[in-house]
Amino acid sequence: MTGRHPRSIATVCLSGDLTDKLEAAANIGFDGVEIFENDLLTFAGSPADVRKMAADLGLAIALFQPFRDFEAMPEPQRARNMDRAERKFDVMQALGTDLVLVCSNVQPVCIDDPARAAADLHEMAERAAKRGLRVGFEALAWGRHTRRWREAWNIVHRADHPALGLIVDSFHTLALKDDPSGIAELPGSKIFFVQLADAPLYNMDVLQWSRHYRNFPGQGQLPVTGFLKAVLDSGYAGPLSLEIFNDEFRAAPVRQTARDGLRSLILAEALASSSVPAAALPPVPDLSGIEFLEFAVNEPKRQELAEFLGTLGFRLAGRHRSKAVELYRQGAVNLVLNAEPDSAAAGHFEMHGTSVCAMGLSVSDSRAASRRAEALLCAGWNEKRGEGERALPALRAPNGSLVLLVEKAGGRPSLWEEDFHLLPSPEAEAGAGMLGIDHVTQALAPGQMDSFVLFYRAVFGLEPEAEVDLPDPQGLVHSRAMVSRDGRLRLPLNTSEARETATGRFVSAAAGAGVHHIAFLVEDAASTAAAMVGRGAPLLAIPENYYDDLEARFGLDAARLETLRSVHLLHDQDAEEGCFTHAYTTSFSDRFFFEIVERRGGYRQFGAANAAVRMAAQARYHARMRLRS
Amino acid sequence: MTGRHPRSIATVCLSGDLTDKLEAAANIGFDGVEIFENDLLTFAGSPADVRKMAADLGLAIALFQPFRDFEAMPEPQRARNMDRAERKFDVMQALGTDLVLVCSNVQPVCIDDPARAAADLHEMAERAAKRGLRVGFEALAWGRHTRRWREAWNIVHRADHPALGLIVDSFHTLALKDDPSGIAELPGSKIFFVQLADAPLYNMDVLQWSRHYRNFPGQGQLPVTGFLKAVLDSGYAGPLSLEIFNDEFRAAPVRQTARDGLRSLILAEALASSSVPAAALPPVPDLSGIEFLEFAVNEPKRQELAEFLGTLGFRLAGRHRSKAVELYRQGAVNLVLNAEPDSAAAGHFEMHGTSVCAMGLSVSDSRAASRRAEALLCAGWNEKRGEGERALPALRAPNGSLVLLVEKAGGRPSLWEEDFHLLPSPEAEAGAGMLGIDHVTQALAPGQMDSFVLFYRAVFGLEPEAEVDLPDPQGLVHSRAMVSRDGRLRLPLNTSEARETATGRFVSAAAGAGVHHIAFLVEDAASTAAAMVGRGAPLLAIPENYYDDLEARFGLDAARLETLRSVHLLHDQDAEEGCFTHAYTTSFSDRFFFEIVERRGGYRQFGAANAAVRMAAQARYHARMRLRS
Repeated sequence: MTGRHPRSIATVCLSGDLTDKLEAAANIGFDGVEIFENDLLTFAGSPADVRKMAADLGLAIALFQPFRDFEAMPEPQRARNMDRAERKFDVMQALGTDLVLVCSNVQPVCIDDPARAAADLHEMAERAAKRGLRVGFEALAWGRHTRRWREAWNIVHRADHPALGLIVDSFHTLALKDDPSGIAELPGSKIFFVQLADAPLYNMDVLQWSRHYRNFPGQGQLPVTGFLKAVLDSGYAGPLSLEIFNDEFRAAPVRQTARDGLRSLILAEALASSSVPAAALPPVPDLSGIEFLEFAVNEPKRQELAEFLGTLGFRLAGRHRSKAVELYRQGAVNLVLNAEPDSAAAGHFEMHGTSVCAMGLSVSDSRAASRRAEALLCAGWNEKRGEGERALPALRAPNGSLVLLVEKAGGRPSLWEEDFHLLPSPEAEAGAGMLGIDHVTQALAPGQMDSFVLFYRAVFGLEPEAEVDLPDPQGLVHSRAMVSRDGRLRLPLNTSEARETATGRFVSAAAGAGVHHIAFLVEDAASTAAAMVGRGAPLLAIPENYYDDLEARFGLDAARLETLRSVHLLHDQDAEEGCFTHAYTTSFSDRFFFEIVERRGGYRQFGAANAAVRMAAQARYHARMRLRS
Repeated sequence: MTGRHPRSIATVCLSGDLTDKLEAAANIGFDGVEIFENDLLTFAGSPADVRKMAADLGLAIALFQPFRDFEAMPEPQRARNMDRAERKFDVMQALGTDLVLVCSNVQPVCIDDPARAAADLHEMAERAAKRGLRVGFEALAWGRHTRRWREAWNIVHRADHPALGLIVDSFHTLALKDDPSGIAELPGSKIFFVQLADAPLYNMDVLQWSRHYRNFPGQGQLPVTGFLKAVLDSGYAGPLSLEIFNDEFRAAPVRQTARDGLRSLILAEALASSSVPAAALPPVPDLSGIEFLEFAVNEPKRQELAEFLGTLGFRLAGRHRSKAVELYRQGAVNLVLNAEPDSAAAGHFEMHGTSVCAMGLSVSDSRAASRRAEALLCAGWNEKRGEGERALPALRAPNGSLVLLVEKAGGRPSLWEEDFHLLPSPEAEAGAGMLGIDHVTQALAPGQMDSFVLFYRAVFGLEPEAEVDLPDPQGLVHSRAMVSRDGRLRLPLNTSEARETATGRFVSAAAGAGVHHIAFLVEDAASTAAAMVGRGAPLLAIPENYYDDLEARFGLDAARLETLRSVHLLHDQDAEEGCFTHAYTTSFSDRFFFEIVERRGGYRQFGAANAAVRMAAQARYHARMRLRS
């Protein structure tokens, strides 16, 4: 094998009718599809119409699926199943596909006899071969007698018919914690088809898990790469195909799912076949953090936000050479306020109001990073720029927001020096103690979590931490942090099906703009909070009861408690006695808010234990603001 | 015991802040609450403020919870835990509650020694007693060493302190399939508190199950009645309290959840203590089916709907004596079109458009049925009526729609004879073959399923069938049928988180009106469908591929297939070869639609196997209509 494998997707992964599904698969660049029988039965055109539509779109129909409960049935069902197979062969010929997926029988009456199963499949293959068709046999993880790939292989091997082969599926194999490595020893030509799916690790009934919670490779926690390596080592040359049953995918926009699917396949093949040039991707970017955050504003909001940032100790540090863009700075934090008309920011402001429209990431090689993003199907963006100004490669996140790639090269002037008139920095002005950006949290619409996890994992090599549930007074918020390997970039992602939670309210108000909260790292949270209060920053008020509980839980001394209490600081400790001290501002324009965080003793989390207190305080603030307006 | 037990609810069951929770609990009629610690920590007032608020509302604070990971810890945690307990005793005294819930330790470092656990709890109880407080110990189903009520009891018994008692929880007991019957043998005075929760039967990790999927007694599948009987047989005289962790409850309107909770407690106590008069309810009504369905219309829509019903073989059978209300009839089906201004129907039309505003159920004793509904917290309704017209007791379903109770008494004229000018029924007019109403399906907004299951179960004694997932092209629809014991009343309930499914579209378009589809029982679906087509009824077109598959699956003969195909009939069979033949109309005004169903050989289901075909056809029809408009 030197070329890449054909890429395919089962129609059951996608929402809409068969026309929507085939168009979306073709438009994003899949080579083929598996036709899920239900999608054909519910379709108003004939199988010949489907064949023509696929051909016009340049899609192969790689497989027809599934044929259920076939092998090892007693009579009269056995004879009836052979008739049923002939009817389905008619459909396959009309569709123009040569391969049918038979999944292992789940019926209680099915006979526990591999020889009988092999004989039945041999007869089916014989009938298929007469029409130039082929049969693939797959072990369902909840099959009656055949559950593992090796059991299915033994039956295929015993049946010994050229038109009968094995189909393997990463979910069925890995859900049972079965070892896929032996697949590498099979003759690749006897593997007729390969299905890939990932899933979060849930301790639940495997059938329910499979039917509702599968997701694309790279979105879950199964070791799909190891499975795929074994498959590729067998010499298998056929399609790699996605087969996902997922409640959210069924309801998601079909183009989003198709793009995520192909992105996941490209990544999976690259990870599993690092030695095959055709499958290779440019390397994961070397990231050193967030260089800047850019806010879309108009003129009144620019002024309002600048004042708000002033209370946090930021000062105006520069003006863009050719655009209505300002730089505010403190420590290593750069915040850009963009009020330029006819720009990406202006379009963003129009749709989302005052909000973060772009995130600038520092990378060592922006062109390589950009090539990787492009290979992984990210749309690019080129902002118009003035004479001599720097071109920043940009790409779009799944919700359309921009990620800009800022290259830091030794010797070269910085982006700010190149594009901005920088103001002199008064030695005496100390700011409030912000050192850098600790993390940036995005609020996603329901159904977008998997999409963002895959985006950050594939394009930037971030890894997802475990999901935590945060109890807002109006419902749960699910949170998952994407973190770079060296921990320098931390991007928590929040989502909530409940529409009145802090996350839900933001998603409606900001039309899914993304960045909901920005946390600055500080050396000493107490002195920073005090400095902020001194400058008039609106800190989120925390109830007294919280501090009484802190005393009971952690035995903090009275002076420390009084310090925390006086400037609305929250406190958490991890099992290794690492400490986290943090405070929040109220939200700006009912949108985003800021946090200051002090980390001690290797604390790595985000203070989830305090999220309920924070969200209840936000709900109170929100209710009070709503009453006023 | 002759009186009923105090009724309590844990604040964690309810959405909002502590003020919202206490107000909702008091307003619906709870006697007390358990204060969940997080609700106190996130509250802006002091414990004394909470005490005053509860007192002003007439609510007892029955318990403070939970105190975690207390017993059998090594030093120094043991000493620290005693300090922590003293701090929490301070809070309890300020709150004015005397009982704290200690749940069994889950920490890996906790010592596996019941004697040590007993000694620690004895010391805690001794400290509590000095302040006039009490400690209740409860086994968590996932506790480290104490998981079952008997293990917790053995520790309490060994500790032998008057201020230490047992707390039992139906979920923790029943989730482990533990036998609760031995609780009846305990001294009732040593049971300090009883928590009740139900849950659907999910085969999953018990901690996740408990944290996300509990629901109120009567909403799930656990044998809560048996548990509660054992508790009551012990002589326990304290509160019965609901403790539910449920993602949907967290986001649901607080008053809805409070009402459902109290309804479930009233029912649970009545079921478990049938011999106690104070807990008794009027009996479950003797239902004989749906006497009528009433549609809210205005004048143009009345005419349009009357014409639509005409194509289904309905004819005008009567006019109301004093109101702008018409009766359409066929077989035993009565459909009422209500265009009366200033009526409940007019209010319904204003809010929901043309839709079913009331369902009339035939009962043998309408006053008893009404008393039961009232005892179960259903709001009543009295429509104004003309001189000599029948008073129909009415109650509101959880979404506000009306259920009218129509008494059929031997000898008495029917409702129709009393209140309507009936038109002579022409002997020759045969209709299209509708015999009666087979089932009526309601579409519920997400989060309403449990509420409706409890309503129909408690008030009318219907039982829920297993939930099925129906694949719409735009997402899953979850369906659960509520069926009377004799099968004469069948009310499927559908819900969908996906907003573009048939169910989701209806819920938005009709603002949660409820009835989405009405199925008529017929003798011969083929001839009825043909008669409907002859009258111009718009049948929902079914794809050819569906019939090809029917042939392959069931081996139907060519003539039968041709009949089905010609009038868009769908076919299903159950395992006992019972047959179901059915067809659908397109929807009226993009709202409700009708179905005809023929049942043979004891088929009891609703043709779920064909739902995907139906919903795909509806999506196509909807898209076409939208294009036209």
